[in-house]
Formats: sequence, structure tokens, C-alpha cells
Amino acid sequence: MQAARLHEYTEEMSDALSIDEVDRPEVTRSDGVVVRVEGAGWCQTDNHIIEGMWTDYVEQDLPMTLGHENAGEVVEVGEEVTTVEVGDTVICHPVTTCGTCRQCRLGEDMYCEDLSFPGLTTDGGFAEFLLTSERATVPLPDGVDPAKIAPHADAGITAYHAVKKAVDELNPGDPAVVIGVGGLGHIGLQCLDAMSAANVVALDVKESARDLAADLGARHTIDPSTEDVAGAIDDLTDGHGAEQVLDFVGADETTAYAPDIVAPGGDHHVVGYGGHVHEPAQALVDGEFSYRGTLVGRYTELQELVRLVERGDVELQTTRYDLSEINTVATRLEHGEIDGRAVITPN
Amino acid sequence: MQAARLHEYTEEMSDALSIDEVDRPEVTRSDGVVVRVEGAGWCQTDNHIIEGMWTDYVEQDLPMTLGHENAGEVVEVGEEVTTVEVGDTVICHPVTTCGTCRQCRLGEDMYCEDLSFPGLTTDGGFAEFLLTSERATVPLPDGVDPAKIAPHADAGITAYHAVKKAVDELNPGDPAVVIGVGGLGHIGLQCLDAMSAANVVALDVKESARDLAADLGARHTIDPSTEDVAGAIDDLTDGHGAEQVLDFVGADETTAYAPDIVAPGGDHHVVGYGGHVHEPAQALVDGEFSYRGTLVGRYTELQELVRLVERGDVELQTTRYDLSEINTVATRLEHGEIDGRAVITPN
Amino acid sequence: MQAARLHEYTEEMSDALSIDEVDRPEVTRSDGVVVRVEGAGWCQTDNHIIEGMWTDYVEQDLPMTLGHENAGEVVEVGEEVTTVEVGDTVICHPVTTCGTCRQCRLGEDMYCEDLSFPGLTTDGGFAEFLLTSERATVPLPDGVDPAKIAPHADAGITAYHAVKKAVDELNPGDPAVVIGVGGLGHIGLQCLDAMSAANVVALDVKESARDLAADLGARHTIDPSTEDVAGAIDDLTDGHGAEQVLDFVGADETTAYAPDIVAPGGDHHVVGYGGHVHEPAQALVDGEFSYRGTLVGRYTELQELVRLVERGDVELQTTRYDLSEINTVATRLEHGEIDGRAVITPN
Amino acid sequence: MQAARLHEYTEEMSDALSIDEVDRPEVTRSDGVVVRVEGAGWCQTDNHIIEGMWTDYVEQDLPMTLGHENAGEVVEVGEEVTTVEVGDTVICHPVTTCGTCRQCRLGEDMYCEDLSFPGLTTDGGFAEFLLTSERATVPLPDGVDPAKIAPHADAGITAYHAVKKAVDELNPGDPAVVIGVGGLGHIGLQCLDAMSAANVVALDVKESARDLAADLGARHTIDPSTEDVAGAIDDLTDGHGAEQVLDFVGADETTAYAPDIVAPGGDHHVVGYGGHVHEPAQALVDGEFSYRGTLVGRYTELQELVRLVERGDVELQTTRYDLSEINTVATRLEHGEIDGRAVITPN
Repeated sequence: MQAARLHEYTEEMSDALSIDEVDRPEVTRSDGVVVRVEGAGWCQTDNHIIEGMWTDYVEQDLPMTLGHENAGEVVEVGEEVTTVEVGDTVICHPVTTCGTCRQCRLGEDMYCEDLSFPGLTTDGGFAEFLLTSERATVPLPDGVDPAKIAPHADAGITAYHAVKKAVDELNPGDPAVVIGVGGLGHIGLQCLDAMSAANVVALDVKESARDLAADLGARHTIDPSTEDVAGAIDDLTDGHGAEQVLDFVGADETTAYAPDIVAPGGDHHVVGYGGHVHEPAQALVDGEFSYRGTLVGRYTELQELVRLVERGDVELQTTRYDLSEINTVATRLEHGEIDGRAVITPN
Repeated sequence: MQAARLHEYTEEMSDALSIDEVDRPEVTRSDGVVVRVEGAGWCQTDNHIIEGMWTDYVEQDLPMTLGHENAGEVVEVGEEVTTVEVGDTVICHPVTTCGTCRQCRLGEDMYCEDLSFPGLTTDGGFAEFLLTSERATVPLPDGVDPAKIAPHADAGITAYHAVKKAVDELNPGDPAVVIGVGGLGHIGLQCLDAMSAANVVALDVKESARDLAADLGARHTIDPSTEDVAGAIDDLTDGHGAEQVLDFVGADETTAYAPDIVAPGGDHHVVGYGGHVHEPAQALVDGEFSYRGTLVGRYTELQELVRLVERGDVELQTTRYDLSEINTVATRLEHGEIDGRAVITPN
Repeated sequence: MQAARLHEYTEEMSDALSIDEVDRPEVTRSDGVVVRVEGAGWCQTDNHIIEGMWTDYVEQDLPMTLGHENAGEVVEVGEEVTTVEVGDTVICHPVTTCGTCRQCRLGEDMYCEDLSFPGLTTDGGFAEFLLTSERATVPLPDGVDPAKIAPHADAGITAYHAVKKAVDELNPGDPAVVIGVGGLGHIGLQCLDAMSAANVVALDVKESARDLAADLGARHTIDPSTEDVAGAIDDLTDGHGAEQVLDFVGADETTAYAPDIVAPGGDHHVVGYGGHVHEPAQALVDGEFSYRGTLVGRYTELQELVRLVERGDVELQTTRYDLSEINTVATRLEHGEIDGRAVITPN
Repeated sequence: MQAARLHEYTEEMSDALSIDEVDRPEVTRSDGVVVRVEGAGWCQTDNHIIEGMWTDYVEQDLPMTLGHENAGEVVEVGEEVTTVEVGDTVICHPVTTCGTCRQCRLGEDMYCEDLSFPGLTTDGGFAEFLLTSERATVPLPDGVDPAKIAPHADAGITAYHAVKKAVDELNPGDPAVVIGVGGLGHIGLQCLDAMSAANVVALDVKESARDLAADLGARHTIDPSTEDVAGAIDDLTDGHGAEQVLDFVGADETTAYAPDIVAPGGDHHVVGYGGHVHEPAQALVDGEFSYRGTLVGRYTELQELVRLVERGDVELQTTRYDLSEINTVATRLEHGEIDGRAVITPN
């Protein structure tokens, strides 16, 4: 089969991946599942992987097929698989896990002691077929096109997971700030709207993104390139600040808003990871706020997100590309030229 | 009456405060309470105030009487006060609040919109008498000496508040790390032991502090000046990390442990505030951990801490000093020469 | 002034209350507030009080003015009141509290050790003027008519409080059952829709109530007089049951649904209180479900409900009546002839 | 191998089970585990099963080997098992689960859609060997004798699970009531002491049980056969009531304490299940309390309980019996003649 693979780390996106002919993966365990990939979302993290930005955090053995936002049709299942069968359409959670370590038994799938992350630590879904596991697959409701919702496998669940933590702390009418209304942010904003009665304030430097935010339920929008963010949040909240901030950018400038815009006792969720967190400890103490890192989400959260899709609460902006266009996609995202989410359709 | 007052910010502790003759405070509101101060703890924050380190965070009008860890005997009450009466011994929560703003109604006393903080923003307890309010006073059980437990008013409640948040996340046998077994840390460690079945690991560069930690229930101690902290925590936790870290130091080096020692999903509580938090956003994301600032605690948490004292679960190490020795105390703390907590006894 | 007062307990609603001429209440404490009543909702609890059904639970000293769902204009304030002033329109939380006991400091207003409940334990709002306190008053947004939203003071907050507890346990797409779409139920349903992405199933024997439920966001409705409730819930949930059930009726038949319709680990919230809870302990154990009583709500929850009103998320169905029609209202409610909520307008 | 089996339901304990010769179970799935049973606790539930009290709740196919509190040595494992190996000593959680349904993925093992419960729905551990699964086994620390701690597999985890829910709601010094200091109660009391700083009040009609309670950390004991329980709790709590009640008896009389002894907002946990819950809905509303059913616990909770054992926080009172004495044990428990817990040692 064909697969788009990374052979060496590079800053040059225009020929980052090569299309190789490789063996089709096969089921080797009782819970294995092979999926014919109908859609695989391209993520900012793919650019980061290509640049070698994850080598300090995980082990990678090149060449490796990228692609961690996968959905498609089940074509083979292990002998003890019962919850999906050949012919089902499924979305694939980005990690496969052992199911038996303490973290797995807690339902904390991302903390599995024996986790593998196709597209980050093993072969992923920019290929005709993908090997995953039963627990990592979530069946799609009738009529949902896998290629349409593939980005929920990572962008969606990551946004959902962060929003779910925020919603636990939000009372009706509380201000919630969304920083960055791009791939993740536009999903997060819809989740926030569906799951809470918070008053959402959205920040983005792009006018089209702010317009989208307003369409999706934001009560206020701010352009940080021309407005004083702290002053604007102060005005909107009578000086109290926002109980929850969801930072889908994670740049030096956006994490630096926290002391000025987070309400006492509130949280600044770090979802994007372009820059640093850098503040005096005294600022965290005086404002009693937190920086909370957030990483993908649980299997059950992917189920919940699929339910939001089924309810009509969350819609994705996607554009499809052939596998052969993969480096074009990498380059365009690097230049900020992709609106919504690019989905590769290898079959 | 006599009061130890700050007239100007200085780095020089040996004559930081002067003993002035000032008017005794009087009750002016229906909920006012005047306390004859029998004990007022000296806190590292007093040194920070003297150095001007709080001017960016609060308004201060000099000269001002310092002292925010106060306990004593009620000598005058406002006309609608019902929960304490003249002659009662009480411990004074460090802030007085309006009782009517939303944060007060939520029980989030520290977030009051009209808060005053004797010893930080108005006259405090290094004086013969202190003006406070009914809601800020907690009666002491029979036989508890106010001078003995005064430091609980701030050091105690701050440690308790952080520990209470940590305990919510700790299952039996989970590792919990206490960084710094000084004034706050030795209280925090006792609270942790009383309120959870976590396995406590204590870090301190002083051997006497590590010995104290072991006496107070720590299962392991680490000397960060000679041991590899991350390696030691790894060994103790089979590479998993500690679910909760309580950082009573808050220095650059101690906040930097987080990516290496906090378990996925865990928290690094920033209680001390000597330095900075500085990490790549990617570290918070990859480890899904949080830096959580923590600020004093609620009125009801002071009640709970007094109950721990009554149960015999928490004991304080204190030494008493006359009001006239106040600059000696300031100097000695600056030089790390105070073991446990210094308590000023103005009467 | 005129006031509708209960002189003796009776089953006879047609002359339950008499319109008496009594003294206008005056502020006697620093935090007192007198409100000119512009709307006072009539509640099923008023009928229960008239029948003497509360004598086992609280002390009542007859004659007493009923009316615990009050809103109007502030006409007098105590000398230390700062958050409302003469001329403000406010909604009045049903209880006044001491503000200093542990429960008050926790923000658990309903558990105050020195609570008074106008209309249940002291004179209420079926009168031209009502004495309340600063903490019990919540200012209304501009343009909100007090008579229009008075029932939120008790019906609204009670429904909101129960829903808020339920929402904490509901994930997107989880089934939530609302039993009874009357005065409280139709508010609860709107709160549920605004605050969660649960799939609401509404039960009511009246077709008009089921239609209203569908209009307000219920995905399914069931008529328990003709349908098998347990079977219907089973079908809708693949046999799993509903995570949360909000029982606004509380009759023997409705509490008896729990073992059959509550999902394992779920809750049956007892809001209405017409009948009994009666089940084998083994049923609670086998299904690991809870019966959770619910009582009014907090001051801050009334603030949150007012925000939902301001956001346009919750609308009330009300009809206005003069004070002179009060026994007509009592009689009609007894006969189930009031749609939505009756509001008395004493001025 | 030999196994003690139930052939028909009976009230007659003296020949309830017969010792049959049956085939040794074998591993049939990739995650299967066969354990040589070194200890199998006898539980009140075994008497209830023999009497047919569970036929309304689960499917049972007689003859069936009883015994659901099992521990022993692993003698065979399925081909994909990695967390235990032949020769390990383990304690067996009472249920085996699918690991793939939503409830399993949530870590809610007891709610598995395809659960089997050896000793209740399939063959259990009153036999030389037991078939279980990898996820249901928890390795024991070195030196822990399986026969000594076998009852933790059900009695222990059930008590722990209820206590863990209670501890989440208990602040230091809050009163917590333990009803019944028998097999479960004496474990629950030790867990409460280790995991919280609550002030425990223990109720039992037997003096020896009250003495044991005092030894294990109860601050007060009450004999309900001679004392006024509600009055005693009132005295101990200044009329406030107990925040949490753990009812290990679940009889009509014990569930009836709730309205009088549970503090507002508190919980009455129904763990034992001899009788009924029967109260007016108004009582639950007026006191805003809950009856919370509780059922066994999670795999991870059994891990946590084993950690408490390892820490030395929880000790069991057990007596050993041969498999041939099994009906003697059944009879003695029926007559209340077993102190602590009886453990069958089939090998």
C-alpha cells in the first residue's frame, strides 16, 4: 500500500514526506483492528514532528508514516473483538493502550504505561490502511462521513478535553476566554457553547476567525493585534477577570495574559504549545490561578464528542486533499494558508 | 498603645520597623471586633513587605503596622456580633471582607471585592491591639494558648489550603512530594498525614528539616543539594512520578522539577514565591501537569485547621519574642536562623 | 398595609387566607432591606403550609403572612448596606441568614443555623411590603420586570439547584429524565438545556406539558398514564438507564421508577415531595443509585439564575392576580387549573 | 477438583452446599487467569444467595460454586497476559469484565455491560481452582498471605468504596457515623481513619464490636439498643448532625435514622441491605440529604486497598476453615456466631 513517510527531520515542508510503497498492516493480537483510512487530518503537530520538536519527549524510529487523526472502515478484526466488526465505519482515537495498567483501569488512557501513538511513535494514517485496537475505535453514527470528521480524532478530542475541564468550573454567565479560533479553537468554542451557559469571549488576530467565533456563539470578540486584551477583559468582567481561559495558541504572548485576565481561583489551560510559560511565582500566588497543561483526551471523551456531532452541536470546517498533495498541505499550514482543517484521503 | 511600624521600604532588616505610640483601634461597624494581641507570628512575607516586594500587587499606605498572624483575647465587639464575645480567645484570619459580594457569598473569602488585609494593606497585629471583624475571628478551644498557635492564622492556613487541594487528588499510597520543611512545610506535612493515606516524600537541604519530616510522617526524605531529585522520585514511583507536589519554596530550581517529577495529570502547587515558573508550554502539554498558585485560605478552612489542632494532629514549633525584639527577628529570619516560627508577644 | 395571612391550618383553600391591615415592616438591623412587593409567586408549598404539612419540620407562629417568591423595589436599607440602594429592583432569595455561622461562611445559605424563611417561618410577601436582608437580595438587570420573574425566587432557584447538581454528572449525549413539566419542571428543563448537552426525556401526564417540554428542548416525551415508563427509557438508552433523573413530582409512583430507570451510579433527585421513597435497600445497592433530596438553593445560585434570564436562556410562564384573588389562586392550583405560575401583585 | 456448590435455594444453612468433584477450570481467552485458591472469604451475601435473595437481580444457573472473596497463586495465564505470571500471589476482584464497553473504558468496572461475577453468576472460589481474568487480579506485596486478606476482595473493597465516597465530603473534625462494626464495618472504620481526619462515631449493639471500634480509632461509640441514637448524635454535633453516615447494616431501623442524624447536605450510604428505605419525600427535601446505594468497587480501588494493607493501615480479623466445614460456617454466620471474617482454605 501507499504511505506518506518521514525519513529525516527537516524545516523544509515542501518535501518533508515521501510516498512509499509499504506492506499493509495486519492484525497480530486478539484485540487488533485494521482500518481502511478514508480521512486523516493534518495537524500542526505533524509540522512539529517533521521539525524534530518531539524527539525530546518520545521515541521515534524513522522512517515513520505520519497521521494521527484517522477515520475509515474496519477491514479486519482480531479474534476477540466484539464491539466493532468488518464493514463498520469508525473514528480512531490517536493512541492504543494496554488496557491493564493502573492508568488504563482508571480510564486515563493517555497515561498508559505501554502506550503507542500511531503517527507519532509508530506508523500512522497517511496511508491506505492503519493498524489500531478495539478500545481505540469508536463506531460512527449512521450517515456520518469518516472523511468529514477525521480531525475530531485529535484536534477535536483535544479541544473537547480542555473544554470539559473548563466547563466543570464555569457557572452560567461566567466569562470564558478562547484564545485562537483555528482548527482546535473553533471546535472548542462549539463545545463550550453546547456544554455550558458561559459567556464566551474569543481572541484572534484574523478577522475571519473572529467572525466565525461570533457565528459559533462567542458573545464578544477581541483583536489582540489592535486592542488592549487585559483592558478589554477588565471592562467585560467589571475588573473580575475570566474564570477560565482556553489557550489554543500557547505562545509566549498568550500565556503572559494570565496574571491580568484570569479571575482569582481560575485556570489558564495550555493547549497549544508554541512558546513558554514564564511568570513570577508571586503572580500565581497573588492571583491564585493555575496553568493547566492538557493532552488529547480519553477514549470515552471521543465517544462524547461523537455524540455532540450526532446531536448537531459541533461542525468541522474541512478541505480534502489526495495523499499525493501531502507536502503541499504541510507547506500551506506552515504559512497559515489553511482555513479550518485539511484532511488527507488516501483511498 | 505600642505598635511596630514600617515607615519606608528597606533591604536593611536590623532597623526595619520602629516601635511607635499610636491610638488603640476602636470598633466602628456593627461587626467589628478588637482583639488584645497575645501572639503575632513573624512570616517570610513580612520581610518581603519590608523590601517593597508587594507594592506591585496591593496598595500600601506607610507608616503601617505589620503582623498578619494574630491571636488573642476579644476586648470589644460591635453591636450585632453574636458568635464571639468579650473575653473569648480567638485566632484571626488574615483578611476582613465585606460578606456581601459574590465571592464572599461563595465562601471564597480571599477573593472579596472589598478585602482588607491587616499587616499588608492596613494596620496589623505587631501591636497591643488589633481591629478585625466577626467573620474573620475563629474561637479557640479551651486550653489552647493563643501565642502558641498564632502562626496558624497565615502560615498554617496557607499550608492547609494547599494540602486540602492536593488531598482531593490523592488516593491511598499515591506519592506526594513536599518541597521545603520550614514554617509552612512542617505544617503542611502534618496536615497531609492526618488527611490522607498518601506516601509523603520530603525535600530539604537542611538535615534537621529532613529529620523533622521523618518524625512527622514522611516515608522518604531527599537532600536536593546532594541527590538527583528526578532520579530519586523516579525510583520511588517506578518512573510514574508524584501525583501531587507541594512547593513551599517556589524558587526557580524547585518549580523546574515539575516536568520531571509530576505524574501525568498531576499538580505542582506553588505556595512559596521566591522565584519564577519557566517552562516550555510543550512540557505542560506532554506531561498534562499544572502549576497551581495558592493563596492563604477560607474562613472555614481556618476553622478546620483549628479542629486539627484540637484533635492533636498538628503541632507548631514556635519561639516567643517581645515586641522590642522585632527587628532582631526580621534579621534572623533573613539569615535563615529561625527554626520553626517566631511569635511576637506584644502584651 | 394589606397582607394575606394564614390564621389557622385548613384543607379548605377557598377561604384559606384573609386580607388583613398590618404595620409596614421597618429595617431594624444594619443589613436590613425593605422591598415594595411588585410580584409574589404562589407555590404548591403555600398549599402545603395552609394544610399544616410543615408543622413537623419548622416553627410557625400564626397568624403569618405567606409568600416566599418575591421581587420588587427597594424602599429602605440599613445603614451598612452597600450592594443595593433605594430604587433598585431586586429579586429576594427566600431565606435570610446570619452570615456568620460555619454554614453561611461556606456559602451553604440554606443550612444557616439562624435562618428565617419569610412566608414559611415569618411574614412573607403576599403584602405590600416585605422585610428582607442585603445578602438575600439580588439586583435585577435593566428592563427585567420584577412581577414577571418573581417565581424564580423559589420555584426557579429550586429547579436550578437540582439541575446544577445533575449537570455535574452529565456528559454530552447522556440521557436525563425530567419528571413533571409544571412550575418547577419547565424551568428545570430550560436550565438543563442551557447548561448541558444531555439528551432530555420529559414525562408528564398532560399533553400540553409534553408539548411545552418538546418546545423547550426535550428530545423525547413520555406519557406515564399510557406508556410503560421503564420500557420506554430502556429503549431510549439501550437498556442502560438514565444517568440523572429530576423528579419534580416526588409522588410514590415517581420515586418508584428509580430502580428501573436510573443508570448504575446515577441519581434520582427528589425535588417534589408529595409522597414517599420506599424501596428495598438491596435495590439501591444492586443499582448503586441514590435518592438525593434537594432544597431551594444558594444566594449565588439565584445570581446565576438571574444571569440565565439575562442571557435569554430561561423564560417563565406566569399569570398575574390581585392580592384580593389570593384564595382563588389557592383553590385553582389545588385543582390543577393553573398553567405555568400564578403571581400575586400586591401593589 | 473439589468445589462447594449450591444445588437449590434453601433457608437451611446446615446442608446448603455440597462438596462435589468437578473439572478444574482452564484458560479459554487471551486474558484468562487460573488461580489456586488459598483463601476464600465467606460473606453474608453467600447466605443471601443460598436463600434465593438474588434471583430477582441476576441470572443464576444451578448448581453453582459459591465464593466471591478469593486470593491465591496464579497457575495458568492466557497468551496475552503481561501483568501477572504463574507463581504470583494475587487477590481477585469479584467481577470479570469485557474491558471494551463504555463503562469499562470509564473505569466503572461494576457497570460493565458484559460482567460476570464468580460465586454469584458463575462458578466461584469455594473450590481448589478459580478462573478469572487479568484485569480482575491484583498482585499482592511480598509477604502478604493470600488466606489472610482474601475477604478484602469483596468485604474490603465494598467498605473501601463507600468510605472513599464519604471521605470526598468530609472535612477535618466533621462527624462521620459508622453503623455496624462487623465484617465490613471494621474495615470501613480503619479506612476512614487512614484517609481522613473525620471524628468517627460508631454504632453497634455488641459491646465487643464497640470496643473494637474504639481500638480502631472511633472517638465515640453508641449502643443503639440502650441509647437514643438521634439524641446522642445531636449532643455530639451541637444539633448539626453527621455529614456522612455509613450504614453497613441497611435494616429498616438503621436507614430510618437518616432524617434525624444526617447533617443538611449530607449522605446516608446504604451498604448493607437487610431491610428497606422508607421515608416521606419531604424528609429528604427538608434535610437535603441523600440515600446513596453502594456496590462493591473498582479494580483500581482494590489496588488502593492493597496499598492500605501494605502501609499497615488496615488489618483484618479472620478465622480459617477447611472446605469440608463450609456449612458449619454458613450456619454460624446465620446465628451471628462468627467474629471478624471466616475464610475457607480449599487447598
